[in-house]
Amino acid sequence: MGLDTAIAKPHDELRSLLAGDLDAVNHLIRERMASEHAPRIPEVTAHLVEAGGKRVRPMLTLAAARMCGYDGAHHVKLAATVEFIHTATLLHDDVVDESGQRRGRPSANLLWDNKSSVLVGDYLFARSFQLMIETGSMRVLDILANASATIAEGEVLQLTAAQDLATDEATYIQIVRGKTAALFAAATEVGGVIAGAPEDQVAALHAYGDALGIAFQIADDLLDYGGTAAIGKNIGDDFRERKMTLPVIHAVAAAEGEEAAFWNRVIARGRQQEGDLEQAIELFRRHGSLDATRDKALGWAKKAKDALAPLPEGRIRELMRDLADYVVERIN
Amino acid sequence: MGLDTAIAKPHDELRSLLAGDLDAVNHLIRERMASEHAPRIPEVTAHLVEAGGKRVRPMLTLAAARMCGYDGAHHVKLAATVEFIHTATLLHDDVVDESGQRRGRPSANLLWDNKSSVLVGDYLFARSFQLMIETGSMRVLDILANASATIAEGEVLQLTAAQDLATDEATYIQIVRGKTAALFAAATEVGGVIAGAPEDQVAALHAYGDALGIAFQIADDLLDYGGTAAIGKNIGDDFRERKMTLPVIHAVAAAEGEEAAFWNRVIARGRQQEGDLEQAIELFRRHGSLDATRDKALGWAKKAKDALAPLPEGRIRELMRDLADYVVERIN
Repeated sequence: MGLDTAIAKPHDELRSLLAGDLDAVNHLIRERMASEHAPRIPEVTAHLVEAGGKRVRPMLTLAAARMCGYDGAHHVKLAATVEFIHTATLLHDDVVDESGQRRGRPSANLLWDNKSSVLVGDYLFARSFQLMIETGSMRVLDILANASATIAEGEVLQLTAAQDLATDEATYIQIVRGKTAALFAAATEVGGVIAGAPEDQVAALHAYGDALGIAFQIADDLLDYGGTAAIGKNIGDDFRERKMTLPVIHAVAAAEGEEAAFWNRVIARGRQQEGDLEQAIELFRRHGSLDATRDKALGWAKKAKDALAPLPEGRIRELMRDLADYVVERIN
Repeated sequence: MGLDTAIAKPHDELRSLLAGDLDAVNHLIRERMASEHAPRIPEVTAHLVEAGGKRVRPMLTLAAARMCGYDGAHHVKLAATVEFIHTATLLHDDVVDESGQRRGRPSANLLWDNKSSVLVGDYLFARSFQLMIETGSMRVLDILANASATIAEGEVLQLTAAQDLATDEATYIQIVRGKTAALFAAATEVGGVIAGAPEDQVAALHAYGDALGIAFQIADDLLDYGGTAAIGKNIGDDFRERKMTLPVIHAVAAAEGEEAAFWNRVIARGRQQEGDLEQAIELFRRHGSLDATRDKALGWAKKAKDALAPLPEGRIRELMRDLADYVVERIN
């Protein structure tokens, strides 16, 4: 997930504003990922947790809580919870995607094995669950349980939708909610809940996280057909994995005759050959699929910014607004 | 886990006593494993959930709650929670062990793939989490979160302890608590908690489930060196996977010279050849390792029965006592 490495400015200023809280989160993460009985666990998690993740999700939890005037200590637990869930998801993704790279370093399943990735991921889920219980808030638990279900459901849906040319934009958005937006939305929402913010602000925080996550993921999927290796993604990964992302959905909808046969061959049947990626990009150009995708991403970024309206004015809100611009800046 | 197929009599009478509750649990399981968006999920889970599992763990939750006089409806949710956690663990085990059989049918990871097993397992964990939240009991959540962490920790510990000749009985028990006893202990304990049972009874229920799970797992590990294919296990599976179960730990402790070299070759270095399993069993006979293991299993079964003392007398308590005898009957 390139967001972790791509964000610079609004992210960096948020990091400064929340430096004390973030130190506490990092301390708690190191403390709670330890295992008395199984030293393999911190070996695997340290690899991920210290591998340069920018802590965007926990920072959003802290930002939401502070913006809503929270002055307790539970937001730190929730931020660590969110990072544990994120890390567990990455570990399980490594198994699932048979990927060999994660944040520019070999993924845990290559350094250790699939077994460790699955089980240490399970351990982190359990630890996140223990942490959130310590807040004593049933509502927070409910939000995070629902997010966990949406995440898993979205990932399963992605499995079955890949290679299926009938996948439409609604299904795509459902997948993106699962793989990306659900955890952003929960991260911001629980920050507001723990602060005791009014209902309209809690709803605004959820809507912001949801739209931010979707904007980010659409931008990321677009860059898969035109980014550079510098952002840590290889162009065409999604194409080779036959994923039905927005550019493909758009181009397939416009395809007839030979074009339809092309998509059927490369996505549905998976018979890819030299030059197919270039041909796909040419079809995107012909139908304006990349422009249409970019417009969607910008639309979701705007939704994220608009969602902030009911929230308390101030520097944090401005930076959250800037963050929404930032996640789509690379494609604009 | 052979318990699901091996238990007959005490299990069957408990099933009759709790028939109404169990129907409600089965109904809830079918309802909650559905997914609006990802039809792959019920496909995978139905395969497991309907594959003849005897529902031992959820039945223990129901039994504990009823024994302690509960007449509400939350025990049904907790029983379904426990079965979801169990099923999720099986799905992740299938990936982890690269096993090809589960309950006598091809495992989910062969019928579908590793991806589905990991992600559908995650989905079931999330669903179990949603279910337990509906009880509104923070204490129940705490017990189940701690059990989840112990399960994952035990499974990771098993990974690192396999092939390690220095593994001792304390480490073995820690592994067994994780892979088997933690969920039994949580299953019985939450039944008491939801019933509002006094503290000594709640502690008794935990101790019973813990000891029952350990007795069962030791018996199961013993049968791996002397059971029959009729119980669904192949003799020598643990040996081939170089697992440090109690018979091996006992024999290794008694080994010198050539025997030590044998264990080093077959377990630590994994250079197994024709006749090694027979040689291992011969060494067990020489040192009384199987008898010593059987004594341990009987000792834990006795602990389980003794733990029941503070609980209300009645048919359920008698059957739970019989169940403790039953899990070790096959080895006695």
